[in-house]
Parts: sequence; structure tokens; C-alpha cells
Amino acid sequence: MRDFVFENSTKVFFGRGCVERYLGALLKEYGETVLLVYGGGSIKINGIYDQVMSILASAGKRVVEFSGVMPNPTYAKVLEGVDLARRERVSLVLAVGGGSVMDCGKAIALAVPYDGDVWEGFWAKKGEVRHQPLPLGVIVTMCGTGSECNGGAVVTNEAVKIKTDRDYPQCNPRFALMDPAYTLSVPRNQMLYGGFDALSHIMETYFSGPDEENVSDDIAEALMRGVIRDLRAAAQDPSDYNARSNLMWESTMAENRIIKLNKRTDFMAHMMEHQLGAYTDCSHGAGLAVIHPVYYRRICQKGAVKFARFAVRVWGIPQEGRGQEELALAGVEALASFIRELGLPTTLRELGVTEDTPLEEIANSVPLTGGGYGNLTREDVLEIFQVCY
Amino acid sequence: MRDFVFENSTKVFFGRGCVERYLGALLKEYGETVLLVYGGGSIKINGIYDQVMSILASAGKRVVEFSGVMPNPTYAKVLEGVDLARRERVSLVLAVGGGSVMDCGKAIALAVPYDGDVWEGFWAKKGEVRHQPLPLGVIVTMCGTGSECNGGAVVTNEAVKIKTDRDYPQCNPRFALMDPAYTLSVPRNQMLYGGFDALSHIMETYFSGPDEENVSDDIAEALMRGVIRDLRAAAQDPSDYNARSNLMWESTMAENRIIKLNKRTDFMAHMMEHQLGAYTDCSHGAGLAVIHPVYYRRICQKGAVKFARFAVRVWGIPQEGRGQEELALAGVEALASFIRELGLPTTLRELGVTEDTPLEEIANSVPLTGGGYGNLTREDVLEIFQVCY
Repeated sequence: MRDFVFENSTKVFFGRGCVERYLGALLKEYGETVLLVYGGGSIKINGIYDQVMSILASAGKRVVEFSGVMPNPTYAKVLEGVDLARRERVSLVLAVGGGSVMDCGKAIALAVPYDGDVWEGFWAKKGEVRHQPLPLGVIVTMCGTGSECNGGAVVTNEAVKIKTDRDYPQCNPRFALMDPAYTLSVPRNQMLYGGFDALSHIMETYFSGPDEENVSDDIAEALMRGVIRDLRAAAQDPSDYNARSNLMWESTMAENRIIKLNKRTDFMAHMMEHQLGAYTDCSHGAGLAVIHPVYYRRICQKGAVKFARFAVRVWGIPQEGRGQEELALAGVEALASFIRELGLPTTLRELGVTEDTPLEEIANSVPLTGGGYGNLTREDVLEIFQVCY
Repeated sequence: MRDFVFENSTKVFFGRGCVERYLGALLKEYGETVLLVYGGGSIKINGIYDQVMSILASAGKRVVEFSGVMPNPTYAKVLEGVDLARRERVSLVLAVGGGSVMDCGKAIALAVPYDGDVWEGFWAKKGEVRHQPLPLGVIVTMCGTGSECNGGAVVTNEAVKIKTDRDYPQCNPRFALMDPAYTLSVPRNQMLYGGFDALSHIMETYFSGPDEENVSDDIAEALMRGVIRDLRAAAQDPSDYNARSNLMWESTMAENRIIKLNKRTDFMAHMMEHQLGAYTDCSHGAGLAVIHPVYYRRICQKGAVKFARFAVRVWGIPQEGRGQEELALAGVEALASFIRELGLPTTLRELGVTEDTPLEEIANSVPLTGGGYGNLTREDVLEIFQVCY
């Protein structure tokens, strides 16, 4: 293991009935006014809204509702929430939803007590959080992003068409309530997209140096095998509680920093997808499913040691009689075949990209983070988009 | 995944030179007087003492030294430290050493601000920490116990000959400085004992319900494969930094609660070894190496599903043509053969147990925790000791 610094302060309450069991007691630690952040209203249909409101009422809280958080939440939406939270002197942000809702709530919690321009300070480039964000609690209703146990918030700035994300430990939720049963009402496609997003987080972490054997890669391999097993089971039977609960925790473990320790990572598939999403609003996990095989076919020989390990340890491809390069590609093809098996999209056309989509402009907007095996150029990115099309 | 609650507040600084790089800044957050807890003085020989003292001096701290913490620290020693810390109005406990030193420092930090009888309150039975323990920081010089990232402290009460341990999240160190290079001066035997202790922690967690596929077991399997690989490498070449640094982090991951989530666990091998240690003062990892194969041969058919997985996934034993019971035993024998390969002890006689050792009395003192596959009785424990002899 190479050098790292690690912390993760979120307290997790996981399991059936955890909201009923724990939320009331948790609320006692915070002030009177709660900003309840949620999305398009599915929580009103599945009963979660009523349950949470009733616990908030029993706890004597004044609730300020902030709803309508869209997938890929915009910076404008964040600022709207900040205004409301300031006006209402909110003392706790409670986000109830999936990644977009949690990210929006997290961004609001960071921005409310901050005097400067929060976009410039924290998302346009890596900043330093010297102030104390508002306390944030999350109730997870859809898994995949892992936002519940980190300090990252993906925000789309529509003015500059940039979607960005930085992980600040100070922005971790204070508590995360994770009831796998809450995710059972998520539509099958969204479940698969979320699961693939989690798998993507692990792969994007794994496919970077160092190449020597290290604990983070060991755990990443275990999590990838788990996600693949559990996605297969959940695709067959979405009501499989064990598979769904495993997927929920795997999504968290993929993004709670444990597997990132001592890793370089560049998250280039995410960078590419984020920009596609900023222009086309395609579903995040679906975009990733299209990009990954094309991107990995392009870079797998540069990271052949790791891609060969991926083939053998994650996909169980026999090593005997195969060279490293052959194995490396075989691992990528196993991934591509898994994506087809799940029925995930395999072309950008399926995601609403047309001949008129300005792929070159999108490619030029992708941040080239560096650090992974690819060291992609703008031309690489455009060619990947073209092959994906 | 079944229900769980998880938190872990320790901030870890890992890597070469981390003490030099971070300790000074960390000290600024605490008051003037530091209780420096250490053991028999090996840190004075390898230079760590001088380095830490110089950083403490630069930070303007008044240092109160509390040295001579023995392996298997006694309750009497803890109380001595508590007296000293109270008298000197200590504001930070800084433990520099391995598991025993960290545990002693942790116990002191818990006890100092507590009015009642700390043994009765927290170790004789599971208590509830409602007060704020003194802040604790640790500098790890020997790995294995994983005490750096949890709230457990193994303390031996000589009056009642009981060694006990409870994990209270409020007792987690505030920070842990982990420089793998610090562990390079540990004698080879101690390194192997520490590594086996870590492997034991993982096995003791793994060999308990639930039996359905779950994320904690997935990660445990990855960690066991890693410890086995890295112990082999370090046994061959103790100066192998990558193997030693992996072992250091694996020891932490084994005991930072991540692999215990949704698991029952009874830690019966530890319970048995703790009592042997309380009577004979044998080295903890060495005692575990003797006990594990004998104990597991006895219980592996009761937990055959898990022991068979252990054989296949951890030891790579081919599944084909073998029944579950055969596989289960084959996994245990692979472990026994690994213990012999490392040259670890295989009988209690090698650990100083003689015909005069009151094995029956020791067996009767072992807490029967329950929860694992064994459900051992007093008679089982005595028979295990007799076979181990």
C-alpha cells in the first residue's frame, strides 16, 4: 500500500425498517427547522414521504419542503435551495431520494453557510472547505451513486455546460438511513443503471496504478464479483431482497473511499458520461454502460497487467495458455457480454444522441483528468464517442 | 445484507514518513499536556521515541511519560495510568506501540473522565459509554490487532484472571499514524504472530452466519487471500515493504468493523486464547495458531457451507468431484499446512504450557459467547485444549 489519508464520518443505519427505528432519535440532535429535499414525487406514491413527515412531526420539527430535484441536478436548482434554506434558517438538510437528491442536498448544505461563490470555490476547481457545512442526513431510496457515504456532489452548471464532482470529507452526511426495501419500488431499468453505476465506480478505481498487489484492488475485485453476482440475481428477480441489499451496500462500499486508498484514478468514463449527460440528459448508468467497453478496448493494453487480473479474478477466465494481452482483452469482452446479458444500452443512439448532437463540442468539454491507464487526449475522447454512437 | 449500524470515526494517516508529516499539525487541536504511553522501550532503540519527543517539543507540549506497558496489559497497569493522567491533567493520550500499548492507552482514555468502576462499567459486561473519553491518538509500530481503528481494548484483570474486550465506537482513536516502515524492525516471529492474529480476526468473523452471499464475507475472503499472500512474501523477505504495508492495512481492515457488518461472530478462538494468555502469558498470535486448526476441525461440519467456500475461494481448492463436507475439511487442512509452512507453533507445549497448567480451570474461565458455528460447551473447550496440548 502506498501512502494515503483516510476518514469517513458518516454513521450508517442499514436494514429493513431503519427509518422508523432510528430517524426520530437522530433528529433530536438537530435544531427545529428541517429542509426536506426530494425529487419528482415518487416518494409520495410509495409511502416514504408520509412515513418521514410523520416522524418529523412527532419530533416536533418545522419542515420546509424543497422538491422537484431533477436527475443531474443543476447549479441553479442548488442556488434555489440555498436561498430557501437561508431564508427559513434551516438547521438540518434531510435529503430523501437517490444520488441526484442526495447530491443536491449536499451541495445546499455546503453552500448555505458559505459567503463566496460556491461554484468557483468548490466545484470549478478543487477548493478547501474551511467552514462548517449545514448538517446533512440522507434517506436512500435508490442506490448506485454511493453519495450517502462521501462528500461528493455531482452538480451540472448549465451556464457552462459542465457537470462536476469533488469529494470533501467535511461534506459527508452525518447519518445515512439505508432501507433496502425502499429500493424495491425502483423501476427495473433504473435498478440496473444504478447497479452498473456502482460497478463503474469500482472499475474506474481499479483500473489505475499502482500495479503491485494492494489491499484496495483486492477489495475492489471482491466487490466487482459481488455486484456482478447480485445484479444477475436482481435482474432475474427484482424482489430478491438479499441481492438488492447486497447491491445497496456494494454501491456504498464502491464510493466510501476504502477502495480508492493508494489509488491514482482518473474516472475518465465518468468524465465522458458527465459531459454527455450535461448535453443530452441521458441516464447516468446507461451512458456508462455504452462508454465502458469501447473505452476499455482502447486502453486495456496500456494497463494489461490489471486488465488481465480483471479477466482472471473477476470473470474467472482461465489463465492457462493465454498471454497477458489476450487476457486483458478477454476481460473487457466479458464485461461487454455482461452488459448485453443485462439488456443495457450499447449505443449512444439508444440514449437520444442524434446526428445533430455536437459530439465534438462535448468531447472538447470533457476534463482530461489523467492518472489512469489511458491518458486520453481530446481526439481519443471524440473517437470513443464516435465508436459509441 | 442483514441489518447493521456502522460508524468509524478514526482518521488514518498511512505511509512512509507520516509521523513527521502530520503529527505536529494534529497536536495543535489538543491541549498542553500529553500522556505518552509506550511499552518496554523498543521505541528508544529504533529511534521512534526520539522522533516523537522532538515533534512534541516543537509543538510546545508538556509530556508525561507512561511506559512499561506489558504484552497483555493488566487492569492494574491501566489504573496506574489513569491515576497519573488525572494527577497531571492530561488532555491527550498518545499511544506509541503495538496492540497492547494502544489498548492500554485506549483503556486509560476511557477511564480518566469516568467516575465509576471502569472494569464493572465497560469490560466485565457490555456497558454504554455516555461520557466523552479523553482524546486518543495512536502511532502504530507493530501491526496485527487492528486496535488503531476501533474502540476495543483487551485488558487482563489479574484478580479474576479474565482478559476481555468490548468495542465502543466512542473509544476509537481520533487519529492513527501508520508508517509501515516502523514495523520493519519488529522481530520476524512477532511479525508472523501479528499477521496470524489479523488472519484470525478475519476467520473468526467469517465463520459465522449469515450463510447467504453477503458483502462482508466477500470482503473477508479478499482480505484472507491478501494476508496469506503477504504473509508468505514477508516470511520470505521481511524487508518487502509492499507486503509489510499490505499486512499493516489488512490488519486494520480486519478490525475496523467493515467485515463484521451483518455478521454474528463469537470470536471463540480469541476467547480461548485470551484465557490461555491470562494464565500463561503466551504470545497472542502464537496461541491462536495452535488453537485454530484444532478448533476448526471440530466445528467445520457444522458450518460446512462456509468452510467449503473458504476452501474454494480462499485456498483455491478445486470444487469438482468433492462434496461439501470433504471441501470443508480440506479448507481447514490447508490452513493447518499454511501454519506449518510459516513455522508457527502447533502445540501448547511450545508456548510454555506444562502438565501442571490448570487446563480445566482455564477452560472453565472461557466465556462461551455463542453466535458462531460451534456453540462450544465447557467440555468442548477443555477437549480442544487437550488436543492442542
